[in-house]
Amino acid sequence: MAKLWQKDYSLDQVVEHFTVGEDYLLDRNIVNGDCVSGIAHAEMLESIGILTEIEFKSLRNELVNIIKLNDRGKFSILPGHEDCHTAIENHLTSVLGEAGKKIHTGRSRNDQVIAAIRLYSRAFLIEFQRVCLKLTSNLIDFAGTNSNVPMPGRTHMQIAMPSSVGLWAGAYAEGLLDDLYLVAAAYNLNNMCPLGSAASYGVSLPIKREMVAHALGFERVQNNVLYVNNSRGKIESVILDALEQVMITLSKMAQDLILFSMPEFKYFSLPVELCTGSSIMPQKRNPAALELIRAKASAVSAFSMQIKSIIKGLPSGYNRDFQDTKAPFIKGLNVGMNCVRIMDLIIRRVKVNEKKLLEGFIPEIFATDRAMELVGRGIPFRDAYRQVGCSLDTLKDEDPYEAIRKKTHTGATGNLGLDSSRNRIKEFESLLETEAARVEKRITGLAGFKVLLFKPEQSV
Amino acid sequence: MAKLWQKDYSLDQVVEHFTVGEDYLLDRNIVNGDCVSGIAHAEMLESIGILTEIEFKSLRNELVNIIKLNDRGKFSILPGHEDCHTAIENHLTSVLGEAGKKIHTGRSRNDQVIAAIRLYSRAFLIEFQRVCLKLTSNLIDFAGTNSNVPMPGRTHMQIAMPSSVGLWAGAYAEGLLDDLYLVAAAYNLNNMCPLGSAASYGVSLPIKREMVAHALGFERVQNNVLYVNNSRGKIESVILDALEQVMITLSKMAQDLILFSMPEFKYFSLPVELCTGSSIMPQKRNPAALELIRAKASAVSAFSMQIKSIIKGLPSGYNRDFQDTKAPFIKGLNVGMNCVRIMDLIIRRVKVNEKKLLEGFIPEIFATDRAMELVGRGIPFRDAYRQVGCSLDTLKDEDPYEAIRKKTHTGATGNLGLDSSRNRIKEFESLLETEAARVEKRITGLAGFKVLLFKPEQSV
Amino acid sequence: MAKLWQKDYSLDQVVEHFTVGEDYLLDRNIVNGDCVSGIAHAEMLESIGILTEIEFKSLRNELVNIIKLNDRGKFSILPGHEDCHTAIENHLTSVLGEAGKKIHTGRSRNDQVIAAIRLYSRAFLIEFQRVCLKLTSNLIDFAGTNSNVPMPGRTHMQIAMPSSVGLWAGAYAEGLLDDLYLVAAAYNLNNMCPLGSAASYGVSLPIKREMVAHALGFERVQNNVLYVNNSRGKIESVILDALEQVMITLSKMAQDLILFSMPEFKYFSLPVELCTGSSIMPQKRNPAALELIRAKASAVSAFSMQIKSIIKGLPSGYNRDFQDTKAPFIKGLNVGMNCVRIMDLIIRRVKVNEKKLLEGFIPEIFATDRAMELVGRGIPFRDAYRQVGCSLDTLKDEDPYEAIRKKTHTGATGNLGLDSSRNRIKEFESLLETEAARVEKRITGLAGFKVLLFKPEQSV
Amino acid sequence: MAKLWQKDYSLDQVVEHFTVGEDYLLDRNIVNGDCVSGIAHAEMLESIGILTEIEFKSLRNELVNIIKLNDRGKFSILPGHEDCHTAIENHLTSVLGEAGKKIHTGRSRNDQVIAAIRLYSRAFLIEFQRVCLKLTSNLIDFAGTNSNVPMPGRTHMQIAMPSSVGLWAGAYAEGLLDDLYLVAAAYNLNNMCPLGSAASYGVSLPIKREMVAHALGFERVQNNVLYVNNSRGKIESVILDALEQVMITLSKMAQDLILFSMPEFKYFSLPVELCTGSSIMPQKRNPAALELIRAKASAVSAFSMQIKSIIKGLPSGYNRDFQDTKAPFIKGLNVGMNCVRIMDLIIRRVKVNEKKLLEGFIPEIFATDRAMELVGRGIPFRDAYRQVGCSLDTLKDEDPYEAIRKKTHTGATGNLGLDSSRNRIKEFESLLETEAARVEKRITGLAGFKVLLFKPEQSV
Repeated sequence: MAKLWQKDYSLDQVVEHFTVGEDYLLDRNIVNGDCVSGIAHAEMLESIGILTEIEFKSLRNELVNIIKLNDRGKFSILPGHEDCHTAIENHLTSVLGEAGKKIHTGRSRNDQVIAAIRLYSRAFLIEFQRVCLKLTSNLIDFAGTNSNVPMPGRTHMQIAMPSSVGLWAGAYAEGLLDDLYLVAAAYNLNNMCPLGSAASYGVSLPIKREMVAHALGFERVQNNVLYVNNSRGKIESVILDALEQVMITLSKMAQDLILFSMPEFKYFSLPVELCTGSSIMPQKRNPAALELIRAKASAVSAFSMQIKSIIKGLPSGYNRDFQDTKAPFIKGLNVGMNCVRIMDLIIRRVKVNEKKLLEGFIPEIFATDRAMELVGRGIPFRDAYRQVGCSLDTLKDEDPYEAIRKKTHTGATGNLGLDSSRNRIKEFESLLETEAARVEKRITGLAGFKVLLFKPEQSV
Repeated sequence: MAKLWQKDYSLDQVVEHFTVGEDYLLDRNIVNGDCVSGIAHAEMLESIGILTEIEFKSLRNELVNIIKLNDRGKFSILPGHEDCHTAIENHLTSVLGEAGKKIHTGRSRNDQVIAAIRLYSRAFLIEFQRVCLKLTSNLIDFAGTNSNVPMPGRTHMQIAMPSSVGLWAGAYAEGLLDDLYLVAAAYNLNNMCPLGSAASYGVSLPIKREMVAHALGFERVQNNVLYVNNSRGKIESVILDALEQVMITLSKMAQDLILFSMPEFKYFSLPVELCTGSSIMPQKRNPAALELIRAKASAVSAFSMQIKSIIKGLPSGYNRDFQDTKAPFIKGLNVGMNCVRIMDLIIRRVKVNEKKLLEGFIPEIFATDRAMELVGRGIPFRDAYRQVGCSLDTLKDEDPYEAIRKKTHTGATGNLGLDSSRNRIKEFESLLETEAARVEKRITGLAGFKVLLFKPEQSV
Repeated sequence: MAKLWQKDYSLDQVVEHFTVGEDYLLDRNIVNGDCVSGIAHAEMLESIGILTEIEFKSLRNELVNIIKLNDRGKFSILPGHEDCHTAIENHLTSVLGEAGKKIHTGRSRNDQVIAAIRLYSRAFLIEFQRVCLKLTSNLIDFAGTNSNVPMPGRTHMQIAMPSSVGLWAGAYAEGLLDDLYLVAAAYNLNNMCPLGSAASYGVSLPIKREMVAHALGFERVQNNVLYVNNSRGKIESVILDALEQVMITLSKMAQDLILFSMPEFKYFSLPVELCTGSSIMPQKRNPAALELIRAKASAVSAFSMQIKSIIKGLPSGYNRDFQDTKAPFIKGLNVGMNCVRIMDLIIRRVKVNEKKLLEGFIPEIFATDRAMELVGRGIPFRDAYRQVGCSLDTLKDEDPYEAIRKKTHTGATGNLGLDSSRNRIKEFESLLETEAARVEKRITGLAGFKVLLFKPEQSV
Repeated sequence: MAKLWQKDYSLDQVVEHFTVGEDYLLDRNIVNGDCVSGIAHAEMLESIGILTEIEFKSLRNELVNIIKLNDRGKFSILPGHEDCHTAIENHLTSVLGEAGKKIHTGRSRNDQVIAAIRLYSRAFLIEFQRVCLKLTSNLIDFAGTNSNVPMPGRTHMQIAMPSSVGLWAGAYAEGLLDDLYLVAAAYNLNNMCPLGSAASYGVSLPIKREMVAHALGFERVQNNVLYVNNSRGKIESVILDALEQVMITLSKMAQDLILFSMPEFKYFSLPVELCTGSSIMPQKRNPAALELIRAKASAVSAFSMQIKSIIKGLPSGYNRDFQDTKAPFIKGLNVGMNCVRIMDLIIRRVKVNEKKLLEGFIPEIFATDRAMELVGRGIPFRDAYRQVGCSLDTLKDEDPYEAIRKKTHTGATGNLGLDSSRNRIKEFESLLETEAARVEKRITGLAGFKVLLFKPEQSV
């Protein structure tokens, strides 16, 4: 099949197979982005006289057509095409002739790939922030509902001090809000337009990069054309690093939920329909989804590390190594999205067993409060500490509810500050939806209808 | 669809989708292994009276049938099956009734998965060692052909001392032989039979683990039943770590070949049919395959790291996290195999440009030889070194051929020791093929025909 | 030696040695931060009546004294102290008696360590942003000086299209500016006050967390007390991930400089006093500093990965595992700082050899420009591309200066946009210095003199 | 201070500081190895007439003297020396004059460093295998003592099937034995002599590499001189990968011990003198050593990853990047050694609480055994499984002792196979001590007394 670079010799079949890799499969994810970017590019080419108005319109129509075919699973990218960009150009040339041969003027696959990936990432990140906010919001609600439910607080996994289910859930909500700050930073870095950088060195045509960037809803042009290619993989790794922080937060939450749903604790219980069974042990109800979330934090870490390991020490300009950043990136995004969604589903259904939580309040848990009481009577802390430490057997059961109520300083069990988190969520949502609407308007303006630039992968 | 553990409630669909992940796709790789392992297990069950002879024979026939279906791409594993083990048991039960319901006696999916993966890995490792030996052998031939072709030796990427193409190629051959030693060690660790460990705690039946291990050609039973599950992911990471060493060797070789085929060097040139072109730059002939080999070293590293990160700190016994070790493992093996094959193809076709190599012999390259000459005249080395270093402009062109011929100590350019490498290759091959024949005989004995337990993935 | 938690038994010596690890050495870095944080804490304790005014003043004086001792290398932390926090409390108690025993009221080493590390990180990040901005600014100057110096542009390390030294340097400057955006995001996440979270569960005293946060110049209180401990290692990894991006940028720059200072290129040359020699080869001048920068990108990656691997999947609340995040964090920061400084030194001294750069302009480099010329005459791009590709031998030498001048679109060689980068640098600097002044004022207010909270490690 | 490569210019001080890094500190670890290797090299130089007998003897005496100084902490390596090799050569030249200037004949720091590191690693690996075998042996004893103590077996951290403390401990012992197989493989790869490869390209002198290799107790010469330098970092990473497997095994064991010493389980308890306390909570007894072992598995992983990331894709021949493999390697070895030693100490002192273990035997744990019982009565397994699964509330308490006794197949609770592990330990020990004696004899032969080539670092 004709490559974009086909001239008078053919590539060895084994090498072709190797270099194509799984791109022809992965690229289904970015067909829509590439078409939309093609429309913006063609519009600009028309404005500088490379394309006639008729050529531009026919290209636009056919690119819209490809999007529609792709949405119905009817646009084929074959291994022989190498990638979606070739499949699309070949399609345009076969349907439109000359106009198709002109579409590549002033661009290279290098900047084309980057543009398609950024549009994909941008759409992903908008949706990802939404699901993270939803989970955060549900965690805050969960914290609110359980703000007065005592929970044994632990350090070193040993019994430490009185805590509450509200404090536990609020901690994860605040963690996610900080993670979202990083996701938003990654969104901003991603939101710059690479088009016009071509193979890394620009082109000797008076192309209008700002016009294309604006049409695609990018916040700015990525200026230096060489830097565009130097940033391949870099932006991807920044995005994955932000997702990794979300995953680390989820992995910790999963570990807590798995641990505290063991029969010896039963602080939490998962409804049976969220648990899997065993092929040999009839009684088993396993928290498989939580275990997989815990494991998938390692996947996102590995994907990010893979990309960074690929780009580290590469000379400047495009290198084919970049191709191998695509699979870990796309997979990483999908893994992240799935895990947040599943955790959200779980947090909405998990049961809190107050009775079992109270059973964890052995007398030792009140040792520190007791020391503070002695401090209140004027004993220097270090003396109070030693006094309590040497007479642990005199500690008595106290009221767990009272113990968590009386810690009223900022962020303590008696003063969780949930409203402040609710406000952060609202502000975040408001900024996000404004941006989402702005971007959607631009893309819709280009294509004439709402184009889905991110669709979840079927199996990850 | 019925799960093996299905009782009187159903798994939430979203959670099911999440927990199945891509297992139903990945498991096509281990269907044959699972069937073969099922035959051996059934044979043992017959020997202890759990199955009648007729039941065993019918199970054996149907398992053989599944292998044949699978080889023709006609055995379906649907997302609803969770994995191949369920698909196979369901198939057996639907075709054979009672006998199908008995096949799982005395085993769990836990040990079943491990067995199927080890059979897959074993078959992979045999083939992988073959292709590595082929590449090594071709490198030695290449070294032999070019043993007298001078090449500027470098350190810090700067011109250092006279070297030869033979030394260069021989270095990689010896590196691969050491890598193969690690691959063989990983093979040995992998070659132990997990069956009978069940869910991690054995079963209260008088199963004969040695009989099953022998039938499947395993070198030994993996004794402690809990250790079997503790070693899930561990053996996989040991195998990938060995492959990673191969990949590091290849990445270095790729880097050298890319570097020295730049127009400023042209020591090596790749035939045009092994190079890809550019979509925008008409003149480009890019060493894409080599760049991808360089990049894919990072993939194998990341896969291994992912697995080790998953298993680190997990409590003993089976945890669902293990499921997520399957994808990186299978992908890692296929990436490794492809890269070795491609490098072999390249090394057989790369051209050596003696003229360009000679151009690299600037006078400075002889500085060390000159210092050694002074040493020969009785000047202490450190004085000779300073003397030469302070009069570099008096260095003259010398004969590169003579320079490499006269270094005759072990392993130097004039004494490459290629025969010794050839002997190591032969010994290795002989051991490998003996083992391969032994294993094949056992598997053929079980199934009645030669079963392919490893087939390369289509796209990796 | 007395531990803070010492009661009526002693820790096994071997275990003590193991658990202390290198903390007693590392903690020299955070003594000043811990003292400053102690002053703010004591001031607050006085305000709520736990300390008398006299006690507070004596504690403040003695903490200031410790800072001064530490700055002269005279404050000892011994292995038996476990860490600086114990050494400081023991010192206070031995000098001041009762007041010393009260300083720990309402805090735990857990929040104390986090506070000291955040003060250290904050001071580091201010200085780090300064040196990055300096390097960026020098790169822009370098780009300006060399904006008209042609350089062969490469993709796949092969000759691609005309480029310029200005484009090359500008690409790195813009990369660093994007990296700095991430560093600033990390700064913001770091700038929240953990004090008052105690062991993870707050305290039953009416402590004023906002007062302490304000005194220490933190931008806000980190609210949820459990989240404070959950974020140990997290913030550190976010900071290291930002540094890792800087390092990746530097590693690429180092690779280019090493490559293009090979004798076959000599585009760049390093002054001899920046190069190291060989123990055996008299002529060698090696770009060792650049090679080490390239290598140290791996160090920062590994440090970040180590921290993330430690915290992934840990249950909530403090776990001792956190202690092991300290060494990779502190080392990572110092490695990053050193590398930026060295690269800055190199970029100010590297020589550009215009003559050698021009030699790289072989006719093929103009192929794409030639195709664009045909496009200008109305030939569809894909036809122009094939036409040029099939007649490469007719390409002629063209004027490299003209070739880079005529690409005038945004970000191309004829339109580098350096002023825009200069403006970004200025804005960044202005924000940074405002913040730095704000923070310094607060800390000086507490201690009565300017306290250095970050000092570079001697050897990293 | 004079560098080995010093000629007529000086290195910039900032760059010198940067390139030396912490080598001058790390190199204390390899001074003895470098001296021993120097003696062997000098002996060879004498045999080929480069040194006189008198020169050789004086060099040998002075090198022995340096070892003795170093063992008393009296041999200084200053930052200005760059490394121990320079410090040693400078010392020899200053004491011996001409003979000192001749010692470097026919070698380079490149092969010298590798030799010193391999001698260090070899000594480390011998000692490391000893401590691992000791831990393994103690685990087997622990398993023997507790072979009849029931323990709830878990999968997914949920109650699964009856298990025993013996099975639990035996699983780790067998894991370590497999890990040791990898450590031994790494030992073999490490045991080849690099000397004579010089800077990567050999020397034009008739050096006798076999003679040097034999004198130093290496098993063979590493033949190809370029491969010697290509293998820098490679062998180190192979060793660390083997250690990483040990660490993963220990991290799992640590996780189990931490988990099952929580108050809700108390299966195990650590004596108080192995636990640390809290600065604020008087009652705390924390399993800090176990948590740090869990964390340090991440350190060893990161160190190995760092080295592999450094060497991946480096061009062949020496590159300065290799220097940065030294610190993670030396630290990794020491971390591994410490962790094994601490785990050994813990396993010898941990208490098993049979009463608490029995409390974990809730009726559900017997579900699978019950299903197998039904199988014994002729019910197909899958039917038995469903029958039990749908009537879990009819399950009754059974005798845990009987439940673990009756599983008698290979590797199950009633048939742990501890003697087989004991035999593997003995065989391993026997091979190890034979090799250790062989190596020690050679080194003692060279130096005239027993030289310690590995000494543990003070703080890691």
